[in-house]
Amino acid sequence: MLVFLNGQLVPEQWAMVSVFDRGFLYGDGLFETLRVLNGKPFRWEQHFQRLEDGARFLGITVPFSLEELRRFAGLLIQENRMPDALLRISLSRGVGPRGYSPKGADTPFMAMSLHAASPFDPHRPPRWRVITSSVRIAANEPLAQFKTSNKLPQIIARAEADAASAEEALLVDTNGHVVEASSSNLFWVEKEVVCSPPRGGFLPGVTRAVVMEICGILGVELREVAVTPEGLRQTDGVFLSLSSVGVAECVWLDGCELKPQSIITELSVKYWELAQKEAG
Amino acid sequence: MLVFLNGQLVPEQWAMVSVFDRGFLYGDGLFETLRVLNGKPFRWEQHFQRLEDGARFLGITVPFSLEELRRFAGLLIQENRMPDALLRISLSRGVGPRGYSPKGADTPFMAMSLHAASPFDPHRPPRWRVITSSVRIAANEPLAQFKTSNKLPQIIARAEADAASAEEALLVDTNGHVVEASSSNLFWVEKEVVCSPPRGGFLPGVTRAVVMEICGILGVELREVAVTPEGLRQTDGVFLSLSSVGVAECVWLDGCELKPQSIITELSVKYWELAQKEAG
Repeated sequence: MLVFLNGQLVPEQWAMVSVFDRGFLYGDGLFETLRVLNGKPFRWEQHFQRLEDGARFLGITVPFSLEELRRFAGLLIQENRMPDALLRISLSRGVGPRGYSPKGADTPFMAMSLHAASPFDPHRPPRWRVITSSVRIAANEPLAQFKTSNKLPQIIARAEADAASAEEALLVDTNGHVVEASSSNLFWVEKEVVCSPPRGGFLPGVTRAVVMEICGILGVELREVAVTPEGLRQTDGVFLSLSSVGVAECVWLDGCELKPQSIITELSVKYWELAQKEAG
Repeated sequence: MLVFLNGQLVPEQWAMVSVFDRGFLYGDGLFETLRVLNGKPFRWEQHFQRLEDGARFLGITVPFSLEELRRFAGLLIQENRMPDALLRISLSRGVGPRGYSPKGADTPFMAMSLHAASPFDPHRPPRWRVITSSVRIAANEPLAQFKTSNKLPQIIARAEADAASAEEALLVDTNGHVVEASSSNLFWVEKEVVCSPPRGGFLPGVTRAVVMEICGILGVELREVAVTPEGLRQTDGVFLSLSSVGVAECVWLDGCELKPQSIITELSVKYWELAQKEAG
């Protein structure tokens, strides 16, 4: 397996970073995970845009242009012969003087790697058991809007899900609202309306935006509104959006069965039709 | 410069970690920074205890015992001839399967490195300008009690301090209380009483505990009580505790001069006397 490292493709075992890199010391970096279909990363522009937005917020310079990175990603996919995979892009601030101040850390570090994608059937979206995590996220904190390398709240949430034999964990903010899941975004259905928490204070996934696009195409009404864990149990169906599979249905939340909802399969199928079409 | 890496001393340029290490991917790890005086790390047991507490919370196994690590730290100090320095201990969960779940990541990665300590005069503790950061920390979140490698809130706070030509930045929680500073703990004086925020929701520094010990020795009354940024400006003096220098006086907060306070120098001198005494 070859890995992209700062402008070169290197064998996996040479894909190393200094222990003084601020990515390792402090999680001082960002990443993106994209689905690769037919050799083409899905929604490349949107993922790159989010990476650039995060880098601007953190004051890190992205050392390659959208086109350069896209070319390297293509080469990586070709050399590894992985046209159907997940692509991870990692950016860290690099090595700098000791301490939290980012001053003087001017050589960002960038890596891209490919990972196996699990096969699945869009006509049968994954059916997940979900718990509410004990971790609390600061409400409306701008930092949470970027895909940073500070993922301990998500890791603790996932470990809690593992311990409960669940597949995902919901994250609640300090106002008591469910804002997202550890590695997916939250949707639910009320009568004919598809709902999702309002932006701000959580990571707005590219897949979340695509699901909303599809709702628009299908003429399904969308609403952004706050929700509590208790409120979710009363709805007409809950689902999650994530780049690896599009959508996953939540069938169980904290010990309660959730209502089945036919629109989830419809969205799953449409998502894959769109993804396949864009992959050419 | 030699660096301790998983049981060996290696030259600095070989001190590398895989880009697939969860420390680099997600900040999935912990660290400690200790002052080394006369070749001896100050308050080794307390720092190691905090590392172990954090590792237990995150479900990471510390791969060396207190005594093993102490012996390696001694060797590192001796080989690098740095008896007066800062020692950084880094622990990460290591490499595992893709995704946030810690399941299957069972080979933790550990490093120790020495860094130059700036000389200073304990009779003249540093006089710092301080700002209140815009970052909000989730109130009473247990995760914040450990010295994890998720430090972006602190990095953003320090960048804001840099931009304001200040030396430190205070962190406020979602209840509006000042809980700590980016890399130091908060104290203030009201009449004859030394105050500090109550534990829970922030990192209780080893130096904070030592300052409290010294207050006990001096017969100074201590109180743990919540405070707002506005409240801090009305006090009889503000100071910070941090391992590199013991205490630093805050002379300016968000544009306001703070009251000078003679007990700060007294604590600084006593802190260094204690540290020198324990270093033998």
